[in-house]
Amino acid sequence: MLSDIEIAQKAVKKPIIQLAQQSAGIPEDQLEPYGRFKAKISLDYINTLADRPNGKLILVTAISPTPAGEGKTTTTVGLGDGLNHIGKRSIICLREPSLGPVFGMKGGAAGGGMAQVVPMEDINLHFTGDFNAIALANNLLAALIDNHIHHGNSLGFDLRRITWRRVMDINDRALRDMVVGLGGPANGYPRQDHFDIVVASEVMAIFCLATSIADLKHRLSKIVVGYTVDKTPILASDLKAQGAMTALLKDALAPNVVQTLENNLAFVHGGPFANIAHGCNSVLATTTALKLADYVVTEAGFGADLGAEKFFDIKCRKSGLRPSAVVIVATLRALKYHGGVEVKDTPKENLVALEAGLVNLKRHVNNIKNNFGLPCVVAINHRTEDTDAEVEQLKASLAAEGVNVVLARHWAEGGAGAAELARVVVDLCEQPSEFKFLYQDNDSLWDKVHAIATKTYGAADISADKKVRAQIEQLEQNGYGQLPVCIAKTQYSFSTDATLRGAPSGHTVNIREVRLSAGAEFVVMVCGDIMTMPGLPVTPAANAIDVDDSGRIIGLF
Amino acid sequence: MLSDIEIAQKAVKKPIIQLAQQSAGIPEDQLEPYGRFKAKISLDYINTLADRPNGKLILVTAISPTPAGEGKTTTTVGLGDGLNHIGKRSIICLREPSLGPVFGMKGGAAGGGMAQVVPMEDINLHFTGDFNAIALANNLLAALIDNHIHHGNSLGFDLRRITWRRVMDINDRALRDMVVGLGGPANGYPRQDHFDIVVASEVMAIFCLATSIADLKHRLSKIVVGYTVDKTPILASDLKAQGAMTALLKDALAPNVVQTLENNLAFVHGGPFANIAHGCNSVLATTTALKLADYVVTEAGFGADLGAEKFFDIKCRKSGLRPSAVVIVATLRALKYHGGVEVKDTPKENLVALEAGLVNLKRHVNNIKNNFGLPCVVAINHRTEDTDAEVEQLKASLAAEGVNVVLARHWAEGGAGAAELARVVVDLCEQPSEFKFLYQDNDSLWDKVHAIATKTYGAADISADKKVRAQIEQLEQNGYGQLPVCIAKTQYSFSTDATLRGAPSGHTVNIREVRLSAGAEFVVMVCGDIMTMPGLPVTPAANAIDVDDSGRIIGLF
Repeated sequence: MLSDIEIAQKAVKKPIIQLAQQSAGIPEDQLEPYGRFKAKISLDYINTLADRPNGKLILVTAISPTPAGEGKTTTTVGLGDGLNHIGKRSIICLREPSLGPVFGMKGGAAGGGMAQVVPMEDINLHFTGDFNAIALANNLLAALIDNHIHHGNSLGFDLRRITWRRVMDINDRALRDMVVGLGGPANGYPRQDHFDIVVASEVMAIFCLATSIADLKHRLSKIVVGYTVDKTPILASDLKAQGAMTALLKDALAPNVVQTLENNLAFVHGGPFANIAHGCNSVLATTTALKLADYVVTEAGFGADLGAEKFFDIKCRKSGLRPSAVVIVATLRALKYHGGVEVKDTPKENLVALEAGLVNLKRHVNNIKNNFGLPCVVAINHRTEDTDAEVEQLKASLAAEGVNVVLARHWAEGGAGAAELARVVVDLCEQPSEFKFLYQDNDSLWDKVHAIATKTYGAADISADKKVRAQIEQLEQNGYGQLPVCIAKTQYSFSTDATLRGAPSGHTVNIREVRLSAGAEFVVMVCGDIMTMPGLPVTPAANAIDVDDSGRIIGLF
Repeated sequence: MLSDIEIAQKAVKKPIIQLAQQSAGIPEDQLEPYGRFKAKISLDYINTLADRPNGKLILVTAISPTPAGEGKTTTTVGLGDGLNHIGKRSIICLREPSLGPVFGMKGGAAGGGMAQVVPMEDINLHFTGDFNAIALANNLLAALIDNHIHHGNSLGFDLRRITWRRVMDINDRALRDMVVGLGGPANGYPRQDHFDIVVASEVMAIFCLATSIADLKHRLSKIVVGYTVDKTPILASDLKAQGAMTALLKDALAPNVVQTLENNLAFVHGGPFANIAHGCNSVLATTTALKLADYVVTEAGFGADLGAEKFFDIKCRKSGLRPSAVVIVATLRALKYHGGVEVKDTPKENLVALEAGLVNLKRHVNNIKNNFGLPCVVAINHRTEDTDAEVEQLKASLAAEGVNVVLARHWAEGGAGAAELARVVVDLCEQPSEFKFLYQDNDSLWDKVHAIATKTYGAADISADKKVRAQIEQLEQNGYGQLPVCIAKTQYSFSTDATLRGAPSGHTVNIREVRLSAGAEFVVMVCGDIMTMPGLPVTPAANAIDVDDSGRIIGLF
């Protein structure tokens, strides 16, 4: 079997301008080429689409992630190709990969096997420069804060209460915690500071929720960057930062189009973290794709408890998007891991562990159906080691509870391998459904967290110490109580303990910290240790990445 | 009069692919478009040009910079358009602007008036992403260093002797001096660290001197990032960093083409600082342009004492480039400033100050002629307030010493305004000349600095304290004695005292610090306070930059 990058490099790609024209009717002069195989769709053109009807929106989500791997992006690509394979006009919408994992441990994020988006190397490296624009906008704002303080601090920043952090798109643990402004009066005032990875920036979240240049600028202006000594919020607009930040982001805001290995159009745009942000590609990409295709397949970060919940309660709530069906991805290996076996043993047949692990999947299915009122199907991302006995038992167990399940072979076979999944999804989209949110805007922030924890995570209750409760109260007094909440907790468990696999219940979710994302319009509730600047492993992937004598990139995965 | 950005936004641009094809014969499939008006020329195509004859290379340099402004880039653009105007096939080669000055004080760097390269906003903001690639390659190497130390430090880094710095393309004084790695064992070992602006990175210098992907990788592998306790150098190759860094830089290394307001082809590629680096656009851009045009006009940073000297002694020495003529740019305002008047008074006629300030210009002219054996012409970048009496006196004074001088009106009139300058330059290129370097490779590092200081700066001698002399000796023992030197001193004076205008002489140049750029292949001799991370002013340019309701960028200058 060839590696992902070898498959991607053998792909027979169509010129993207021609492909976008032929498959989606986008006029050539409304596309900005970035090389031959990447392009941006002009915002002016997007404005002309407003009156068109929308296609059906399908969300691909997953069980709680495991080290055994699930293949959510791969399934999103496979399902999109599968829909096109059965004659349905379909476009997929993915997030842009971060360089952190590319050079670290996880690798790229352009799908795998026969279900990939290409050009894989470009998408995984700089792509069209969006993340750079976001990093610079973020860091310009940071520089303006320290510069303002250096030149007299007329806004009255409390140096201990600056909440805005700098960012870099590299896994660099040395930058997590630092003291900047050292070296004497010419370098400003010393203070504690932190770098996050770019995908954790509020600018990334804003970028992905903005519906226009004007909305982007308005949201940037509302960012709370710090507080005065009497805790009055100081905004980006107080520093006159939003105009220059918008200038840096203007070109990036236009959605990117690339193609799958099967020459189907794919949007890849934006990529916020799924813990301290909402974890979905840009609203502009999704809404545009819905005007250009009958079926739009998109994914959300992490498992359904985090990614899908935020997709519905943040992205859909705020943008007016309404999904028609949900696909929940699992692998037999991952289910066996949830059933208690070690990663190294997951390839072996183990019917007991499989059955035990199904509790994780079943809770996610119930959440989608009952919390959000949406029809769903389980997609088993087939692996060569899966045994017939395991597949049969899985199907029987799920059928007994009325859960749809399809074995999908897109990794090995591309769109043809996902044809059955595509047919089931098309049927689901025709079913009557009553999409609903998990909480209402005017519920209190506390009640919003309580609703998510008890209805989705199986928790008995939520808690927070006095200081955090006071912060929540302060936010409501400052007028931020109407915002949705964005829960940052471990993705590996329904609980806040990463080691509790399966479907733990009866636990208490403790809110450890509260962070306001006023421009992105949500309140982050930090429940557990959240890493917003990853580190590199002992042997980083970077060590193996190279350019060969013919100029070809090797070692990327 | 319209502002620069207003003129640029009214330009009638040709599609760059078509322009590059028609004016330089570059096949369409050898150009990677970045939008409609920017493109990169493929390295494969550049390899096919090797056997073609070279055009004539013309360097544009300037008097010692003043706050009154000289207009070197504007004159480079104007001369290029002027050569095309008189029927000579000409291409200009410029440096890419840094975002630091764009958001800080100086503004963009795409020329001015009727002599600009376009699209001005794109070139001044992200352009084709080259600086981002350089920043990421630099910062990946930094992360690999701290990660290596965190995981056991088997290479034996002395934490006090890590020389590699992180970079950002924002003026941010708070990042000049910091302590990173705080927060406990999970975040690595605390140590002092520094950010430079991207243009000050050795990766930028390497990028601009590399002649191929293989040469780039080889140079990256040679970077010295720090030392062990016994002062043994540790290289980027010891961290296996060069492959991933090359992967990040691969696309960026292909030269960028854009156009002037008069639809003439322009290369804009690379942009190293002219103090701690050599201050010229990429070797690949210059050598490629020479294969595609009969005349190539390029510029070097700061005044001729720094920019031109490094262009000759570093860039030309290492690349085999051989210039045919030199243009030295001055304005009457700047000459009057060198003659002792304050900036605010420079617009007023002042024949005495003008004559006094001419000493600066004359020394630069003599240096070009005598040190480097090249024919040169002085281009007076005309301003509306210049009086006839001043122009006549200047011409007479220079004619008395046999110096060519031309009044150039490209700022107001474009290429037609530089036609006379173009004709003089064409004549100069036909004059016999004997280009020579200021020193030889096998001169000692000390003698190299001595030659530059005494022959170019008018210094009586050079000095260095014992510690610096020991460092120089150590470098020679480590095998770096054959490298050229790169002097980092104030650009405002021939001396190391920024306040000494005109043509000071008899001073001593003190070497304060030595920095090895082993991958770029030069030794930086720091003579004075060198700012490698600028700060923002009280009212940053960023405050006025905005995007209007139609999506147009405003406030950029």
